[in-house]
Amino acid sequence: MIWYEMDPYPKPLRDLITQLKRLPGIGEKTATRLALFILADRDNLSGALAACLEKVSEQIHLCPLCFNLTDSSKCSICRNTDRDLSIICVVEEPSDVLAIESANVYKGLYHVLHGLISPLSGIGPDDIKLPELIERIRKSPVSEVIVATNPSVEGESTFHYVTKMIQDAHLTVNVSRIASGIPMGGELKYMDQVTLASAMRYRRNFKDIQ
Amino acid sequence: MIWYEMDPYPKPLRDLITQLKRLPGIGEKTATRLALFILADRDNLSGALAACLEKVSEQIHLCPLCFNLTDSSKCSICRNTDRDLSIICVVEEPSDVLAIESANVYKGLYHVLHGLISPLSGIGPDDIKLPELIERIRKSPVSEVIVATNPSVEGESTFHYVTKMIQDAHLTVNVSRIASGIPMGGELKYMDQVTLASAMRYRRNFKDIQ
Repeated sequence: MIWYEMDPYPKPLRDLITQLKRLPGIGEKTATRLALFILADRDNLSGALAACLEKVSEQIHLCPLCFNLTDSSKCSICRNTDRDLSIICVVEEPSDVLAIESANVYKGLYHVLHGLISPLSGIGPDDIKLPELIERIRKSPVSEVIVATNPSVEGESTFHYVTKMIQDAHLTVNVSRIASGIPMGGELKYMDQVTLASAMRYRRNFKDIQ
Repeated sequence: MIWYEMDPYPKPLRDLITQLKRLPGIGEKTATRLALFILADRDNLSGALAACLEKVSEQIHLCPLCFNLTDSSKCSICRNTDRDLSIICVVEEPSDVLAIESANVYKGLYHVLHGLISPLSGIGPDDIKLPELIERIRKSPVSEVIVATNPSVEGESTFHYVTKMIQDAHLTVNVSRIASGIPMGGELKYMDQVTLASAMRYRRNFKDIQ
C-alpha cells in the first residue's frame, strides 16, 4: 500500500502542512501542529492570516531610497523629517533596521544591502545594493557611513569593500564600523577566541570612557 | 515618542507578524523571522499559503461518523472497505489518528473525542463526542473499543468514564486500554516513578512474549 492512500488527513490539510513546512525552522511535526491549531481556532485565524498574507505580497515593496520595506512611496524613516540626513547606517537586512531602531540610539538614515558580498556563494558587489549606496552618497549631503553588517567573514569583507568603493569614487565621507566585543551581560569564559581578541585589541582608554 | 510612530515596519507586515504570533510556540522574534522569510520568498509562498488557508477553512469539516477531519462526506478511514468494522479506537484529537496510522499496526476504525473529560476545566462527558460514541456502538457491530487517550489524569478518567457509560448502556463490547510503560529506546534511570510503577505492575509473563 502506498503512503498517500493511507494518509488519514484530507488533501487541503495536507497541502497546508506542505506549505507551512517551507518556512524556516518548521518541520513536519511543527507544521502539523500549526495546521491543526489553525483549523481548530474559532476566531477565524485562517481567514485573518490569509488576508494578511495577500496584503503583504501586494502592498509591500522596497523603499527606492534606502531599500527598507515599505507600503508607501518612501519608507517611514526616509519620510521622517526629524532624522539626521548626514549619516547613513549600512545593514544587511530589513530586520537589522528594526534591531537598531529598537535600541533607540540612532537618528540617521539607513541603507539596506539585501545581502553581503560572498565570493563562495557567487554574490558580488553588483548583486547587492552597493552601487546604489555609492550613487546615493554622491548625490546627498552625507558625512558619515556606519557599516553595521554582522561581524562575520562576509560582513567584514563587505565593510572593506564599501570602504574601497568610497575611496575609489573619491567621496569625502567618514566610513566607520560598529564596535565588536563582549556583549553586555556576557561572560568572558564562554566567549570565543576571535571575540576575545577583538575585545582586547580595540580596548578603550580609561580617559575616553565617561 | 510612542512606539508605533517609530515602528520601521510597514503596517501590512506588522499585521502579518501579529497574526503569526497567535500560533502556538511562535513569539515576536520567530513571527518576525517567518514574516520576513515569506516576504523575501520568490516562489510565491505567501500566495500559496493564503490559498491553502482559505481552502482549509472552507473545505475541511468533521466526519459525521468518527469525527476525524475530512473534505468529503465521510473520512478516508470510514470510507475504506478493507478496514475492520468491529473495532473502534477512541482518541482525543485528529493528530492521534495520524500517529496510530503511521505505526501501521491497526486496521479498525476510530472515534475522535475532540477533548477529554476534565472537571477542573469544566469539560464534562457531553462536551466531547462521548454520547456519539455510545450511540455508534449501539447501532453498529462493534466487538471491541480500544481507549487510546494519553496516559494523563484526564486520559485515565476519560477511559474509566467510557467503561462506565458502556456498562450503564448494557452494551456487550470489550473495552481495552493501550499499554503504558517504558517507551522503546527509553532508559529506566530517566523514567518518572508513575511510569516505572505502571511498567512493573503490568509486566508480562515470559510465556506470553513470543
